[in-house]
This record gives sequence, C-alpha cells and structure tokens, in this order.
Amino acid sequence: MQTLIKYQDLFELSEKVFLAIGSNPADAQSAAEVLVSADLRGIDSHGVARLSGYVRLWEAQRVNARPEVRVVHQTPSTAVVDGDSGLGLVVGPKAMQIAMHKAEAVGTGWVSVRNSNHFGIAAYHAMMALPKDMIGIVMTNASALVAPTFSKERMLGTNPICVAVPAGIEPAFVGDMATTTAANGKLEILQRKNLEAPLGWIQDKEGSPVTDAHALKNGGALLPLGGDRDHGSHKGYVLGSIVDIFSAVLSGANFGPWVPPFPAYVPMPENQPGKGIGHFFGAMRIDAFRPAEEFKKDMDLWISRFRKAEPISKDQPVLIPGDPERWMEDERRMNGIPILDQVKNDLKAVADKFNIKF
Amino acid sequence: MQTLIKYQDLFELSEKVFLAIGSNPADAQSAAEVLVSADLRGIDSHGVARLSGYVRLWEAQRVNARPEVRVVHQTPSTAVVDGDSGLGLVVGPKAMQIAMHKAEAVGTGWVSVRNSNHFGIAAYHAMMALPKDMIGIVMTNASALVAPTFSKERMLGTNPICVAVPAGIEPAFVGDMATTTAANGKLEILQRKNLEAPLGWIQDKEGSPVTDAHALKNGGALLPLGGDRDHGSHKGYVLGSIVDIFSAVLSGANFGPWVPPFPAYVPMPENQPGKGIGHFFGAMRIDAFRPAEEFKKDMDLWISRFRKAEPISKDQPVLIPGDPERWMEDERRMNGIPILDQVKNDLKAVADKFNIKF
Repeated sequence: MQTLIKYQDLFELSEKVFLAIGSNPADAQSAAEVLVSADLRGIDSHGVARLSGYVRLWEAQRVNARPEVRVVHQTPSTAVVDGDSGLGLVVGPKAMQIAMHKAEAVGTGWVSVRNSNHFGIAAYHAMMALPKDMIGIVMTNASALVAPTFSKERMLGTNPICVAVPAGIEPAFVGDMATTTAANGKLEILQRKNLEAPLGWIQDKEGSPVTDAHALKNGGALLPLGGDRDHGSHKGYVLGSIVDIFSAVLSGANFGPWVPPFPAYVPMPENQPGKGIGHFFGAMRIDAFRPAEEFKKDMDLWISRFRKAEPISKDQPVLIPGDPERWMEDERRMNGIPILDQVKNDLKAVADKFNIKF
Repeated sequence: MQTLIKYQDLFELSEKVFLAIGSNPADAQSAAEVLVSADLRGIDSHGVARLSGYVRLWEAQRVNARPEVRVVHQTPSTAVVDGDSGLGLVVGPKAMQIAMHKAEAVGTGWVSVRNSNHFGIAAYHAMMALPKDMIGIVMTNASALVAPTFSKERMLGTNPICVAVPAGIEPAFVGDMATTTAANGKLEILQRKNLEAPLGWIQDKEGSPVTDAHALKNGGALLPLGGDRDHGSHKGYVLGSIVDIFSAVLSGANFGPWVPPFPAYVPMPENQPGKGIGHFFGAMRIDAFRPAEEFKKDMDLWISRFRKAEPISKDQPVLIPGDPERWMEDERRMNGIPILDQVKNDLKAVADKFNIKF
C-alpha cells in the first residue's frame, strides 16, 4: 500500500515538474525544496501529494510559472508584496527574504503578500529565520472550510500560524499549527480509513457537531480550535481571523469566503474583493532585543525545563513544539519517505505527462 | 448580593488608592483607567476586584509605586523596556507608547518588557493603537497555572494574546483571549456558585481531566486551549509558549514556572532566571502596508460579511471579536458596574486603610 522513496528522488521529480511548467531553474529548485520539506517533516498532506494539484492550477491558468514577485509598497520595517499569481512555493521564500533583510536593517521586518497561491508548510518559511538568529513568524489564509462559532457557513480557511525560535544547544522551538481543532490532513486520513472523528473536529451542514469524517464533503465544516463555545471555539475563530486579516486585508488579497480554492476544478468565488490568496511573514532579529547568546542560553533553559516537566505518564514525556517533526525528518532522511500507492500513481502520471523518468 | 456602582466612582477610588501608595498623579490616573477598563468591558476578574491585591503587592515591596520605566536596548523598530518593578498598569501604557512611536517612525514597533507586574486586561493596551490607525498586539505571561499537553505540572500562565484592528464605519475588531480553554476568571465564577466545569477546562493533581471546579486549588491545573491532545491542546500549549517567549525570554523577565505570583502571600519561586513578569507590545501602522482608507473599507467588508454568515440558530447571530465587551461597556457606562458584596467590602477596607471616602 506504500513505498519508501528517497528524499532526493522526490525532490528531483518535483524540480523537473516545475521546470517543465516553465519555472526558471532557481524557482524550480526553491519550490521543490519547500514542497518536499513537508514530506520530510511528516505533513504528508502538504507535500508531493499536492504536486499534481499545482500542475492542474497551472493548466487552469490560475498559477503563473514565471512570476515577477515585486514590492508594491514599503517602509523600513514593512512591505506589501504582489506574488504575480506565482506558486506560493516560490513567492513565500522571496517574501520571507524581504522580511529578513528588513530585520537586518531596523530590527524587524513584516511582509504581507497578495496575489499568491498555496505555499506548502508554514514551518519551511518560518525556519528560514533560524540560521540568522532571528525569530520567524509565518501565516497564510486558505479557502473557506471552517465555520466561526455560531455559524453554519464556512468562512475561514484552516489558516495556520508558525513561529520558529532559535535556541543554543537545544534544537529550535517550532510551533506550526492550523487554527482549527484538527488540520484537514488529519481528517483525510480518517476518511481514507473510514474511521470516525472525535466530536469537536467537524459539524454537519446544519451546524450540529458530528463524528462522521465525511461530513465535511457533504456541506459541513471544520471547527475552530476549541471545537465548541464551551471549550473556547471563539478563540480559534479569533486566531483564524487574525491570520486572515494580517495575510489578506493588510495586503489586498482575498479574505474570508472569497479565498481561491486549491483544487483547480472548484470554481472561483464570485465578486472577489482582492487578488489571489494572502500570506504574512515576520522576522525579528534576536539581538534587536538582547544579545543573541544570552537569549539562546535562556531558550535552552526554557526548553530543558519544559522537557523535565513532571509527565502524567512515565511513557509519554512532555514534548517541545517541533520535536515530532524533527524526529520524523531525521528518520525519513535516513530511511526514505513512505508514499501511498495512490500518490505514487499520481506522481507517475505527472512524470509521464512531461516525459520525466520516475 | 451586588450593587451597581458608577464608573466614575470606581475610577476615583482607584486613582486615590494609587496616589496613596505613592504613585505620581499621571501614573495614578493611568493605572486607574487601565484597571477599571476591565470592569467596563465585563472582565470582572481583572478590575477593581484586584485593587486590594495590588496594594498587598506594594505592602510586600514587590511593587515599586515610583518606577523609572526605561529603555535598556533598542533598534529603530524594537526595544526592551525595564519596568523597574512598577505596576503593570503603569508600565504597560508607557511600553505601548514606545511601540507606537517606533511604528510612526519605521512602520512597526515591538517592545518586550521585563521587571513588570500584572498589567490588567491586554485589550486596554492593544486598543491604544486604534485611534492612530494602527493594529495593536499585546501579550503577557503570568504565574504558572497551566499544564502543557502530557504534563502533570503547571508550567505556563494563562498567557493572553490581544489583537486590535481598526475598521471604518464598523467598530474595531478586538480579539482578547487567554490561551487556555477557559480563563481563570470563568473558573472562579463556577467555584463561587459550586458548579461543575466542562471537561477540558482543568485536570486534577494526577493529570486526569475532571469537572470539579475546585481541582485547581487542590494541585490541579488549567488546560491549554484545545483541552486534550485529541482536541488540539498541543496548539494551546504552543500559543501559551509563544507568549511566554516573546514576553520574557526576549526581555530577560521570568518565564515558565518562575513567573512571580499575583497573590502577595504566595512565596516567590526559587532560582528565578529573570526580573519580574514579562509583556510584549506591538504596533503596526496600517499605512505602512496600504492606504488606511482602503484597508478600513476592506475591514468593514470583512466584518459585515462575517456578521451575515448564516447562523446555526436564528436567535444567535455570528459575532465579531470585541462585540460582547463593547456592548457590555455601553451598558455599564450607562447603568453602572455591578460589584459583588464581597468585592465592595474589600474596596471599603482599602479605602478605610488610606482614609479615602467611598
């Protein structure tokens, strides 16, 4: 049902596919690196499983393989970037670089992006800040799958937030989270296995909480982190809204129910107020606050103290955000990345389309 | 069991108490305004109910009534501020002003604060940005009451995040939230009424989820937003951690289990790595991204569209973050603020102590 495939093979296939649709070599390499980083970190829903989807967006002329990504407005610490309908996988790293350059100059940099597309995992972009001794902060909006508290209607995407913080001898703190109870990728796993979802993940088309993992396809909605009003779903709704506003209202992208869908066959929402989807990138230089060495010593203490928090069960120690993904990456770099047959066939079809050997 | 008291009376009492402990007139006025804004907005746990607690912190020499709040390090867009053990109610507005000045100069301003104390409600400080057409972002850490996912031990405070975003003809978006399933103030209400808490709010001292609202006093812990692993408590843990790191590791304040407690009778944690508690303040000038009028027109569209989201029940429309608190403020400014007898007696005792008429 699945095959272990080496990172390098998935990277090269992805790079060749992006070259085949017309990306320039630097962009193709960057896009492939962002895409396959998701598979490495175990976020299988955002990796090569989406490669054919990106190609279909290009075929539908919703993605421009040769974008001129440009700054349309800026101050010393901010910029709005227009992605020129490029792959988010290409636009994202460029926008994060701009945020980091601004941080080098004035301490922090903040870039809101319009006219982009799906950018892979937020963690890739946020972690670009780490080698520079900066904190990286990344958000993106996405097409509406989530119902705010009290709403029957889908109004927000799963709108993730990632914050990456460098440490010293400890590995970095990397918190990367959808602002829903569960990411859509987790629901898809349950759907494939015909398992039920915990109450609090989804509601049906009437707005009732349900365990049927297929309810989302039948007019239901994902629920904001918290799940219901009693458990703080209004807070998940606040978080998803902040991501939407910073990514899209600040930049002039589409927001709320107007965000373009990822599947190319889904029609575009009508009367869109902006351009494409929106992202938000932030970089804060550590030494704009404290000497980096002092900060990293305290982060090491923070991390080691939290690791030593008394666990409920001796078999399950307290984790630091980023631990599971880092362990997964170590394991998959060594042993290969498990690819489901369905995804492998999809990759073969894409490779065949462009006469790429795979 | 409760009395309606006019805003002005509570404000004047608080101002006189802060003058009595030695605050200068400007600081006393500012502190009183921050404190009573909590009562106005319906966050009763953070308003005058805490006035005697601040006095006790001053009596225990944990609060300096005459702080010299100073910038200890800065870049064009950042600063670290030392609160000199002042009331957070005094330090907070000063630090937010610094963030806003920096935003005026270079687009955004970011201030991490050490050596401070409890600063009231985050919303007061974040909303200072609104009249300047800025987005306000405010966080603070607090003494440890919250157990990370898999932890029996309390490691984080309820660590709130507030984001305030200006709109045009619509009222501002103001999301102010503890990063726990439920704020401690909500649990206190259940404790007073001897009611049970929903599962997912707290765990007992063994780390088992319980409904006993008193479990927190008996060695239990509040739970991060999400409540349990299946419902995303690791995300609430990420959020609380980010608040802790931005507020305290960036500034050199205490973090994690070392944050000083609010009640003056609780001993200070040993081996503290930093100074006082930490806050984080951000201000982003809207026109550092887009012309403010364009942005506010889009925010009006965002807000009006979300208000019109199809509700699950016709009796409960979808709300915009900040709606309930704004309605509460309108009502309480007009009719007075309900003060529980217990709190009223407490206020009378404080007034008597300083020979203030109340």
